[in-house]
Amino acid sequence: MTLADQPPAAALVFQTLLQHGPLSRAELGRRTGLTPGAVTKAAASLMADAWIAEGGRPSTERTNGRPATLVAVRPERALFAGVKVTGEELIGVLADLTAKPLASHRVALDSRDVGSVVLAVARLVERLRVTADLPGEDALHGIGVTISGDVDSRLGTVQYSPFLDWRRVPLAQLVEEATGTPTVIENDVRALTVAEQWFGAGVGVSIFALVTVGAGIGAGLSIGGRVVSGAHGVAGEIGHLPVSGVERICTCGNTGCVEAVASTHAIAEQARQATGDPKLTMDDAVRLAHAGDPTVRAVFARAGHAVGLALACVANLIGPERIIISGEGVASYDLFADHIRQAFLDHAFGAAVDCDLLVRPLPFEEWARGGAAVAAQRVFAPTK
Amino acid sequence: MTLADQPPAAALVFQTLLQHGPLSRAELGRRTGLTPGAVTKAAASLMADAWIAEGGRPSTERTNGRPATLVAVRPERALFAGVKVTGEELIGVLADLTAKPLASHRVALDSRDVGSVVLAVARLVERLRVTADLPGEDALHGIGVTISGDVDSRLGTVQYSPFLDWRRVPLAQLVEEATGTPTVIENDVRALTVAEQWFGAGVGVSIFALVTVGAGIGAGLSIGGRVVSGAHGVAGEIGHLPVSGVERICTCGNTGCVEAVASTHAIAEQARQATGDPKLTMDDAVRLAHAGDPTVRAVFARAGHAVGLALACVANLIGPERIIISGEGVASYDLFADHIRQAFLDHAFGAAVDCDLLVRPLPFEEWARGGAAVAAQRVFAPTK
Repeated sequence: MTLADQPPAAALVFQTLLQHGPLSRAELGRRTGLTPGAVTKAAASLMADAWIAEGGRPSTERTNGRPATLVAVRPERALFAGVKVTGEELIGVLADLTAKPLASHRVALDSRDVGSVVLAVARLVERLRVTADLPGEDALHGIGVTISGDVDSRLGTVQYSPFLDWRRVPLAQLVEEATGTPTVIENDVRALTVAEQWFGAGVGVSIFALVTVGAGIGAGLSIGGRVVSGAHGVAGEIGHLPVSGVERICTCGNTGCVEAVASTHAIAEQARQATGDPKLTMDDAVRLAHAGDPTVRAVFARAGHAVGLALACVANLIGPERIIISGEGVASYDLFADHIRQAFLDHAFGAAVDCDLLVRPLPFEEWARGGAAVAAQRVFAPTK
Repeated sequence: MTLADQPPAAALVFQTLLQHGPLSRAELGRRTGLTPGAVTKAAASLMADAWIAEGGRPSTERTNGRPATLVAVRPERALFAGVKVTGEELIGVLADLTAKPLASHRVALDSRDVGSVVLAVARLVERLRVTADLPGEDALHGIGVTISGDVDSRLGTVQYSPFLDWRRVPLAQLVEEATGTPTVIENDVRALTVAEQWFGAGVGVSIFALVTVGAGIGAGLSIGGRVVSGAHGVAGEIGHLPVSGVERICTCGNTGCVEAVASTHAIAEQARQATGDPKLTMDDAVRLAHAGDPTVRAVFARAGHAVGLALACVANLIGPERIIISGEGVASYDLFADHIRQAFLDHAFGAAVDCDLLVRPLPFEEWARGGAAVAAQRVFAPTK
């Protein structure tokens, strides 16, 4: 029996246990608003199908003078594969119901052709399955593939991926056909935000934003335990907030975008203009800036200023408790940190300035784990 | 018995009925996830205390071959007063549980002194009570006072109100002492957003923003049925998004804010500079712009451009289905409409452009009704 076949009260009990760990039945009643009878019935149904079990750490709570029995999720009951697709490689992680990683692996992509990538994803998942020595095909409950760009997770379609140059690719269905395993897809930053919300720097934080800087600049917004996905599939597009002035044109065709001055590509291009060296790479720019080159340092300062303004926009609009800054760009974060912070402090309004800015390098395995978390969530909290 | 004394399942049933109207017990079970037994028990408890009743429009749904009996909220069971405080007057509305207005009244303020305003609020509420011919003191369940500025609704304190020049005023407690009625306070734009979400242009809209333009420029963001209030009490501060360039200084001390070029005050000031007439008022500026004065029209164009950029920020970050534009500034909306729309269209990213822009003049009575809605919500959905 899949979790989807369980009655609604059982799904609610299961979700509550997943988020808050082992709980007594009385505490489950308080947290869900279900009656004691309904909790007992739901727990019995979940236990009969091995989704939860009694046990876990002893409770300090007492029922009729004895310590209350706790019930907890059985993490091994269902496993999930998460795959992050970049323009160059696939990063895969196999994880349990609580998104704890059991195995991981990377493979280089030799083509960005849809068919080749789908095949490579299927092979990667198979390899993860073999590495983890899974008992049978049944043990893998779902696959979550994450990719940057405009991803419609409800339709299972990549509407547009700039790095792969894909448009309207029904990726979920293609991977599902190639693997025989239910597959969901999600924008990579939103999936990483789900991961941070569930088991990272967003645990217990009511409102937070995860901002990633690098080749693209994006954000995931978590409000009250849900990642905002936008009525039309667009949300968290912090890279396209019009705060950077009119001088440079963004890859999206507009002026003013944060990405127009602060993406890796934009920084390298501005550094080439500033130095007059047409062959300068991003690595060269980082080296020159670290060596103190004032014109290249000014390029990083401008990028940091634009990112800081964007963070102030996020703070003034949704008032997060914390903004987590990650992405491959944080490797050279020291070059813009002060400018980000200063622009943020100058433009955050009133108490919004109390928002905590946390820099957190996250390897691509964490992003892939976000895919596994999204796949797991889809099983126990299907979108309505 | 107050609703707060009802068991949690009863509160859930009550909220569901309030939001979705008359429902059968079976439908209540589906929507709440409660078991049939828990629904029956909760409904019986609410019915015993007259919060809900059987009846309402006939159901097409059938139970054992007969039409299912519907249960519905009794709107007259509890009444609420909503009061909007501006720098010049109080606007009051008396409303039932579903925020349907029963009476309204306005009074001018002769002083902005805290004591005088509190006394005026108490008198206004008394007058609403007399006008509506309320049976006894018990019938008024709560008061919701709304005011612009930094309002901490959890503490019941106005942290800062620029128009009244108040700082750290424990307004909820003061009004409660003066009236003997439980009182909540809320930022006026957030309260209006609650009202729009509940019975205005936000009904059934998953994500929307309400943007008000006028003396101040603010926004309320409604995501998944909740108005975002920010971890530190600040949210929706669209007037302080840094998108307007560095030339003008905002009342908050920063450059770049939308309010620095688009508030009523900023427009009038720029029009005085543009015309060289130091006595020009906002009304004069509107008249000159309507008569075709190119320099004054340029001031409105710039204001509209900044507001449009701010709307694009909202769209790119949270992806609303709809943005409702209101506030006293919409009276001269024709002067900036095209510039707002153009800047929005130019800078909304991808599918975010599908967001519907709706201009909606709302009299202050609607704002006051938002106060009544917030007071009502506090009774049946106390904040945790």
